[in-house]
Amino acid sequence: MTSILAAPPLLQPEQGIAHLGPAGTYAEAAALKFKQIQAWDPDTSLIPCPTIANVLEAVAEGSVEWGVVPVENSVEGGVSMTLDTLWQLEKLQIHQALILPIRHTLISSAHQLKDIEVVYSHPQALAQCRQWLKTHLPQVQQVTSRSTTDELWRIPDYPNKAVIASERAAELYQLPIKACPINDHPENSTRFWLVGSQLSEVGDHTSLAFSLPENVPGALLKPLQILADRNLNMSRIESRPTKISAGTYVFFIDIEHPHQPSLPSSLIQDFQANTEILKLLGTYPLLLTH
Amino acid sequence: MTSILAAPPLLQPEQGIAHLGPAGTYAEAAALKFKQIQAWDPDTSLIPCPTIANVLEAVAEGSVEWGVVPVENSVEGGVSMTLDTLWQLEKLQIHQALILPIRHTLISSAHQLKDIEVVYSHPQALAQCRQWLKTHLPQVQQVTSRSTTDELWRIPDYPNKAVIASERAAELYQLPIKACPINDHPENSTRFWLVGSQLSEVGDHTSLAFSLPENVPGALLKPLQILADRNLNMSRIESRPTKISAGTYVFFIDIEHPHQPSLPSSLIQDFQANTEILKLLGTYPLLLTH
Repeated sequence: MTSILAAPPLLQPEQGIAHLGPAGTYAEAAALKFKQIQAWDPDTSLIPCPTIANVLEAVAEGSVEWGVVPVENSVEGGVSMTLDTLWQLEKLQIHQALILPIRHTLISSAHQLKDIEVVYSHPQALAQCRQWLKTHLPQVQQVTSRSTTDELWRIPDYPNKAVIASERAAELYQLPIKACPINDHPENSTRFWLVGSQLSEVGDHTSLAFSLPENVPGALLKPLQILADRNLNMSRIESRPTKISAGTYVFFIDIEHPHQPSLPSSLIQDFQANTEILKLLGTYPLLLTH
Repeated sequence: MTSILAAPPLLQPEQGIAHLGPAGTYAEAAALKFKQIQAWDPDTSLIPCPTIANVLEAVAEGSVEWGVVPVENSVEGGVSMTLDTLWQLEKLQIHQALILPIRHTLISSAHQLKDIEVVYSHPQALAQCRQWLKTHLPQVQQVTSRSTTDELWRIPDYPNKAVIASERAAELYQLPIKACPINDHPENSTRFWLVGSQLSEVGDHTSLAFSLPENVPGALLKPLQILADRNLNMSRIESRPTKISAGTYVFFIDIEHPHQPSLPSSLIQDFQANTEILKLLGTYPLLLTH
């Protein structure tokens, strides 16, 4: 974990919240929101990490108590690195979820849009502004960065460059906003998870991940039938390739159980009997923010 | 369709095959394979397009008879632009599928790896080489391009630049290979679809896309139950956000029916009765290539 070692001195690692950095990312905004909702000590450190995988690794290794990761954008869909890393690592549990509205902002020192030659951002942010970029900056080179804020240091000195990040990032670093919002869909939002290593068993949402026995017709039906038999709504299903053999998948599902504070253990047992590998990712409340 | 108009003169548009270009992409390799398998006239034109959406639009508008698009990579999962565009456009049908092994190649005029400062490629190719890049080129800037071959023109004149593309692209343009294969997973392969506008109803695979009535617990169960009742295997399920309201999805499923040349019409009727919008994307054979 060189990323954590290289970060500012970690006075209270057990109290810290790791997130994709540098400061000013949407993940940091979500981390601040979780801190406020949980009414944590104002001194709780926010710890920026270079990648989403590093955030989850830091929590799994115990070098930080909490991690905040994006799980799904309303336009671009699931965040592959979050899902794949959660499947690989042990002991991680989701303790809370929140939905954060996303307003992408074009930050640049250029006098006019036509002076911009390069635009930097995270691949998800570039994808969410695809049409806007095609219309307003059709000739610019699009450069991916590890986070929306990674390349902001270029802005003061290079008027031919721009970055897509949050309004808050522009304010934080006192950089000029050229256009906002620039996301193609006004209703753009991203769901974030607060992840820890303690067991999480109370809330009205539960997330599971599982693989299935191969080549069994209707294998996916059984887990879904278990939910339907109990009249439970599956609010999301996402498949990811196992990367081991083509055509085999890991499924991530979110279950809503508004009238029960947790999933009955008989349901978990039924799931275990009808999946190959089952991971209980946590039972937690979902918060909406505006 | 400026992309098509700007392409070389189209002598037999009805005979052409549109694909993501410029020449040398994996999509072009798949298009050549389909042309060989179908034993089409050797003069059938290959028509490179700037984006995957443009390929499908050209077929939907009738300016070209066939289009070849990537649908799923064994490591990175579904190709969002293909699925989203297929859902938006009318009349498109899948006529054949093939699985193409992917061997990513680092192409550069640099003397040594340490001289490389920038690496260009399609976002999927960069993602499929994430670990290799982290290990061998940790400091380079990763720049996304619209296809793997879009930035190859830079290679002869700029020894500080590299492109990730196919071995065939390096051969085609006579450019130096610095490393191959560089994909993190040796078993990397991509499935491609041959898409036309004629009805496609014969084969042992059928692809459907559908949306579901909102907030109905177990709504996804019914379509899956319809398949299980007939002992049919669903070889893939993928969800994509509708982009209209958060938490609503379009599902893409592939069904295997090895003992029947098409899906029974009673099954289609059952699907129609249990989905909101249903799109029959075609019944077709799947080919494996090595």
